[in-house]
Amino acid sequence: MSKPLILVTNDDGYKAKGINSIVSELRELGEVVVVAPGSSMSGMSGAITVKVPIRIGKMWEEEGLSIYRCSGTPVDCVKIAINQVLHRRPDLIVSGINHGINSSVSVLYSGTMGAALEGCINEIPAIGLSLNSYEKDADFTTSAKMGKEIAIDVLKNGLPRGTCLNVNVPYTQEVKGIRVCRQADGMWAEEFEKRVDPHGGTYYWLTGYFKDHEPESEDTDEWAIKNGYASVVPCTIDMTAYDFINSLKTRLDGFDEIK
Amino acid sequence: MSKPLILVTNDDGYKAKGINSIVSELRELGEVVVVAPGSSMSGMSGAITVKVPIRIGKMWEEEGLSIYRCSGTPVDCVKIAINQVLHRRPDLIVSGINHGINSSVSVLYSGTMGAALEGCINEIPAIGLSLNSYEKDADFTTSAKMGKEIAIDVLKNGLPRGTCLNVNVPYTQEVKGIRVCRQADGMWAEEFEKRVDPHGGTYYWLTGYFKDHEPESEDTDEWAIKNGYASVVPCTIDMTAYDFINSLKTRLDGFDEIK
Repeated sequence: MSKPLILVTNDDGYKAKGINSIVSELRELGEVVVVAPGSSMSGMSGAITVKVPIRIGKMWEEEGLSIYRCSGTPVDCVKIAINQVLHRRPDLIVSGINHGINSSVSVLYSGTMGAALEGCINEIPAIGLSLNSYEKDADFTTSAKMGKEIAIDVLKNGLPRGTCLNVNVPYTQEVKGIRVCRQADGMWAEEFEKRVDPHGGTYYWLTGYFKDHEPESEDTDEWAIKNGYASVVPCTIDMTAYDFINSLKTRLDGFDEIK
Repeated sequence: MSKPLILVTNDDGYKAKGINSIVSELRELGEVVVVAPGSSMSGMSGAITVKVPIRIGKMWEEEGLSIYRCSGTPVDCVKIAINQVLHRRPDLIVSGINHGINSSVSVLYSGTMGAALEGCINEIPAIGLSLNSYEKDADFTTSAKMGKEIAIDVLKNGLPRGTCLNVNVPYTQEVKGIRVCRQADGMWAEEFEKRVDPHGGTYYWLTGYFKDHEPESEDTDEWAIKNGYASVVPCTIDMTAYDFINSLKTRLDGFDEIK
C-alpha cells in the first residue's frame, strides 16, 4: 500500500512557522506536498483569483516533501494543487496552522477555512487548523501534535461527504483535551478605526473585538477555547437553511405571476 | 413611520448596470444608500481587508439616494456602511444584481453572497441577487423586478435570525416564477488553462465548467434556473454539520490524553 498523499496549504504563506510545524508532524504520516501562498493572505475567505493569472513555483524538494509557492489565494492553492501539481488526488488536505483563531463566524472570513472547504467541495477529507495566538513567535508545538492526531483519525476513518473540520487550539501550556462543538453564535463589533493621512485624507483600519452572543453555552467552539480545550467543529459546504424552506415557500407562493 | 432604509452593495462595482437596475426599483420602497466597490470584486467571497486601510468617497447624492465608493471588498462595504456611513441600522441589505450566476457551491466563492452573509451576521435582513448572464450588456429588468418583489416581502416579514436569501434569476424572456430551493450539490471542474508568457514563464487562468452532481433533483437551485425559474435558497451563517457531531464525538473520544 502506498503512503498517504497529504496536501498542505495555509493563508499565512509557505514560509510561516505554523505551516512548517504541521508539515514536520504530517511527514511522519505520508508524502507531503505544500502548495501555499507566497505571502500572507489572511481574511481571504473562499476568494478565488479571476482577473489575473496565477503562477506557481517549486521552492523545495526532498524525499517525501515538496513545497510550492502560489501567487493566488488559499482556495486557488487547493485548486491548482489538485489540477496541476499533484500526481494523484490527495488523501487529505490540511490547511494551517493559522496564526490566530478561526472560531465562530470567523469561519466565513478565514482563508484557512476557505482552503479546507475547497478540499471538501473536491470530496477530499480536509482539516483547517488554527492557533489562538497572535504572538509574533508563537509556539505551534501542541497545536501541531493535535493536528497530527486528528489527521491520523481522518486518514483512517475519512469524513462524511460535504463535511470538513474546523480545529482551533487554545494557546495555553496545557490543553485540557478536545471538544467536538458547534459554531458559536457571535460577530465582530465596532470594526473601524478612522485616521487622517498626512495629506488630510480620511482612511479606515478594519479592527474591533469579537462578541460572543452566547457565552454561557458550553457546546460552542468559543466556550471550548476559552476553557482550555481544542475545539473541533464539523463544517458543511451546504449553506441551505433547511428549517426555513417550508415557511418561505408559503410566503413566496403568490410570486409566480411576476414575469 | 419613517421610510425603510435600504443598503445596496455588490461585487461588480458601484457603476455596474446590475446595481443601478436594482437601485431604481428599490428607491420606490425607501431611502437607498449604495456602498459598493470602486471596481469589480468578483470571486471575493467573504474576504475582508486587513493589511491595507480602506477608503470611502461619496460619489452621488440626491433626495432618497446616496452612492459611496469603497476601496474594499463587498464584505468591507457592508461593515463600513453599518459602522461609518449610515445614520441608523438599515432595514434591508440587497447585494447585486450580480452579473453572473451564484447558485450551488458558488455561494462560497461569491462576493455578492459574501456581502449578504455579512448583513446576516449583523442581524440585518439580507438578499443576494444574481442574474444568469455573462452578456456584456445583459438586460437586468426582470431580475430587478423580482428583486423588488422579494425585497417587499422581506421588509414586511423579515427573515429568521442567521438566515439570508440567495436569489438567482435565469436569463430568459419569460421567467416561469420563483422556486424556493436548496443549494445544489455540485462543483467547478477542470479549472485551469495553462499558458506561456512571451518570456517563457508559465501562468494559469482559472476557468472550468460547473458540474451538477444531481441534475435530476428537482428541489435544487440549479434545476430551477435550468428550467426557467428564479431560485431562492435560504442560506445560514451557521456552517456546523450538526448531523456529524455525535459520531465525531465518539471517534475523538480518546483524545483527551494529548497534552
